[in-house]
Amino acid sequence: MNYSIIRKTTGLVMKFEAIFLLLPALTGLVYREREGLIYLGMAIAYYLIGFLINFRGESDTEFYTKEGFISVALVWIVISICGALPFVLCGDIPSYPDALFETISGFTTTGSSILADVEALSHASLFWRSFTHWVGGMGVIVFVLAIMPARRRRMGNQIHMMRAESPGPVVGKLVPKIRDTAKILYLIYFGMTVTEIVLLLLAGMPLFDTLCLSFGTAGTGGFGVLADSVASYPLLQQGIITVFMILFGVNFNAYFFLFLGKDKKEAFRLTEVRWYFLIIAFSVVTITINIARMFDNVFLAFHHAAFQVGSIITTTGYATQDFDLWPQYSRCLLVLIMFIGACAGSTGGGIKVSRIVILVKAGLQEIHHYIHPRAVTSVHMDGKPVESETVRSVIMYVGIYVVIFCSSVLLVTLFDGDQSLETVFTAVAATFNNIGPGLSAVGATANFGHLSLASKFVLMFDMLAGRLELYPMLLLFSPSLWKQR
Amino acid sequence: MNYSIIRKTTGLVMKFEAIFLLLPALTGLVYREREGLIYLGMAIAYYLIGFLINFRGESDTEFYTKEGFISVALVWIVISICGALPFVLCGDIPSYPDALFETISGFTTTGSSILADVEALSHASLFWRSFTHWVGGMGVIVFVLAIMPARRRRMGNQIHMMRAESPGPVVGKLVPKIRDTAKILYLIYFGMTVTEIVLLLLAGMPLFDTLCLSFGTAGTGGFGVLADSVASYPLLQQGIITVFMILFGVNFNAYFFLFLGKDKKEAFRLTEVRWYFLIIAFSVVTITINIARMFDNVFLAFHHAAFQVGSIITTTGYATQDFDLWPQYSRCLLVLIMFIGACAGSTGGGIKVSRIVILVKAGLQEIHHYIHPRAVTSVHMDGKPVESETVRSVIMYVGIYVVIFCSSVLLVTLFDGDQSLETVFTAVAATFNNIGPGLSAVGATANFGHLSLASKFVLMFDMLAGRLELYPMLLLFSPSLWKQR
Repeated sequence: MNYSIIRKTTGLVMKFEAIFLLLPALTGLVYREREGLIYLGMAIAYYLIGFLINFRGESDTEFYTKEGFISVALVWIVISICGALPFVLCGDIPSYPDALFETISGFTTTGSSILADVEALSHASLFWRSFTHWVGGMGVIVFVLAIMPARRRRMGNQIHMMRAESPGPVVGKLVPKIRDTAKILYLIYFGMTVTEIVLLLLAGMPLFDTLCLSFGTAGTGGFGVLADSVASYPLLQQGIITVFMILFGVNFNAYFFLFLGKDKKEAFRLTEVRWYFLIIAFSVVTITINIARMFDNVFLAFHHAAFQVGSIITTTGYATQDFDLWPQYSRCLLVLIMFIGACAGSTGGGIKVSRIVILVKAGLQEIHHYIHPRAVTSVHMDGKPVESETVRSVIMYVGIYVVIFCSSVLLVTLFDGDQSLETVFTAVAATFNNIGPGLSAVGATANFGHLSLASKFVLMFDMLAGRLELYPMLLLFSPSLWKQR
Repeated sequence: MNYSIIRKTTGLVMKFEAIFLLLPALTGLVYREREGLIYLGMAIAYYLIGFLINFRGESDTEFYTKEGFISVALVWIVISICGALPFVLCGDIPSYPDALFETISGFTTTGSSILADVEALSHASLFWRSFTHWVGGMGVIVFVLAIMPARRRRMGNQIHMMRAESPGPVVGKLVPKIRDTAKILYLIYFGMTVTEIVLLLLAGMPLFDTLCLSFGTAGTGGFGVLADSVASYPLLQQGIITVFMILFGVNFNAYFFLFLGKDKKEAFRLTEVRWYFLIIAFSVVTITINIARMFDNVFLAFHHAAFQVGSIITTTGYATQDFDLWPQYSRCLLVLIMFIGACAGSTGGGIKVSRIVILVKAGLQEIHHYIHPRAVTSVHMDGKPVESETVRSVIMYVGIYVVIFCSSVLLVTLFDGDQSLETVFTAVAATFNNIGPGLSAVGATANFGHLSLASKFVLMFDMLAGRLELYPMLLLFSPSLWKQR
């Protein structure tokens, strides 16, 4: 292990976090809140500490997959540990572990909250809470790569770090230079967020709500500013959020092809994106039928079904309705699409549509193989065969995923023996897939505050493991990594 | 597809079922029940029909994996369809679909029942119900192979059929000849069943109960003769059943090495068997601690924990306690070991310990690979490396397993919208893993009778798919199989 990386990464992250904290500080000043000064103070303090840690100068270091993964895990842990402190100092979340839960939930774009009354928070803290979603959505490292000048980025081979942070089985470089790829991704991300802000403002939403909800939508996070999530906004505004949630769950490669590609039709040929929209269409239609009699007319049922499906499959977690009260089929389907998640290369979480597609295709191929033992076939995506190594690693990923999932459920039942299995199961599902609300006691109208401290730490691990696609967190806790020199 | 196989298999199965039906007929005569004559009549009828179907003579036919799988699926469907009829004719189970559910549950050694009052059944039907467990436990085909004279077994390459029916990722031939392997397996099976019968008789259990419960234990089925499963038998008798449940869940290769092998120590070197006992030990100890305060003393808690863990991991499904009332950790752990199941090559169901071992080892290897990218490693079992093709097919198996599981849960929520998710989830888990009781409305003291007809058919499919390890049933429903000539 190259220990200088840990020091270097920590210093850099603290400096960046300092810059991020200026935004809630500004919000506090606008609303003339005392909390704004606390955010400003923390920003200055973090910048100084980061500067001191990195003072000894940077040196070029060898940088392989392992170091990349460890650095990424550290970046996310450090940014969360530091990001949680202002909540406590402001008095908005008195307990530090709760504040850490909320911050990890923010950066990982989960959106699970321990807050019983979100409306009691200061504007500065509300803004910071939502802004963590936006930062976490596209990725902290990707952000660093995108904005740092080329000569300063002596972080070695950045593709390893970007690969560890970016969701999905295959991270393609859109353009030859990794830094340009990062820039393009953030450009698309920024552009789409601004578009949503403008549209929501035009639809009559107040500016503060617009900013916070757009950050939450863009990062597929789910923190809102009102106690009832987005249930009390007009239908039009909810509709805009529905559309943008689904758009932010699309593989960003599609937008690259669409806006910057030579052949725009390529965007529509992406297998994953087509399956993504097919799953959404199937879910919206069947849930609409399932819940139709609960609403005055079919349009309303469709509106809420589309919002909820979009919110869950993209792992955003906003709610217009307490879907915990919906019929079993709808509840169960929503839990299932929690696991599917959004496209790879989007800001969403879950197992990712591409992995599901590869898994299903490999399964069908296996059955086909029994019928035609001599036929040579392979799994295809986007018209090209998928390497068998990729198929293997996708299946392995899902296997490890299931093991972590089951272990988490078992641990939470141990620490919170009084919760129903449905609560425990969906609490883990909602955090591990970075969604936000589950069912029953952690449902859309409830929160995670009543769980035990030990359970909260299990769920914090799950949120980070889910966001970073397992390996960075597993490597960090792997004894053999720390044993060797 | 070779259609003559279907005819031939059906005829043969009906003749064998006729022989099996003589036992409940005899039971009926002993107890002077009218139902005995019905079983006798059915036996004669099935033998005649089987004889007529096979009258046109047998011919050697080409027989590959595909035909083997299809034949096995057909054997199990035919034997269940025919086996269900006596229940209806006796009036013991008036509805034919319910009788079919009960019979499939019997042959697949699931033990899920639709009966609200099992004690109302005739002795003949109770015996038949339990005897289906014994037949299904080791396998119908294995039985046919074991007892038919060599010159009559013109069923082609029998290894394909045995492989399709025997549980586990790799079916080894114990001895060069497949027929001798089948004989040895049934010899061990028969010997262990007789031992259990003798011990239970010595412990003072009535003969009829002894036979039925021993069949249920040997096949890891779970049908009993009393309404409270085995809760009202004395502790000693429950203890004997605990030991034998766990023994029948061991890979029969271990017994082969122990009784007939040259190096008896080989039995203790089997990786799967060691993991099996480790999982049992871990579960029994932690559940004992978890439920200790519910009982007068720790020994009683240990007794019931051991019984329940043995019953669930071997997928038997007997109960001495309503474990639905146990604390959440115990309930949740029991649900998890439902999925693990027994050893491959035993009579138990579930995913099988060997698959879990391979999955966990492959997962650890994958993590190891990120830390030491250049190290060449492979998964080891029993001291030998596992072929990567086997690892791949194991992982694929679990993937397909998950897809069928989720689809089943979704279908049942659709057909039984008024049931809780816990009920639906564990109903599918209990049938797909061939266990028997689930939690809540399908718990140890409840039954499956109240579910809708459509849900029952889904669960029947799951029971067969679970017992035959997915592929035979999937192939049967694969359109491309029936399209080709």
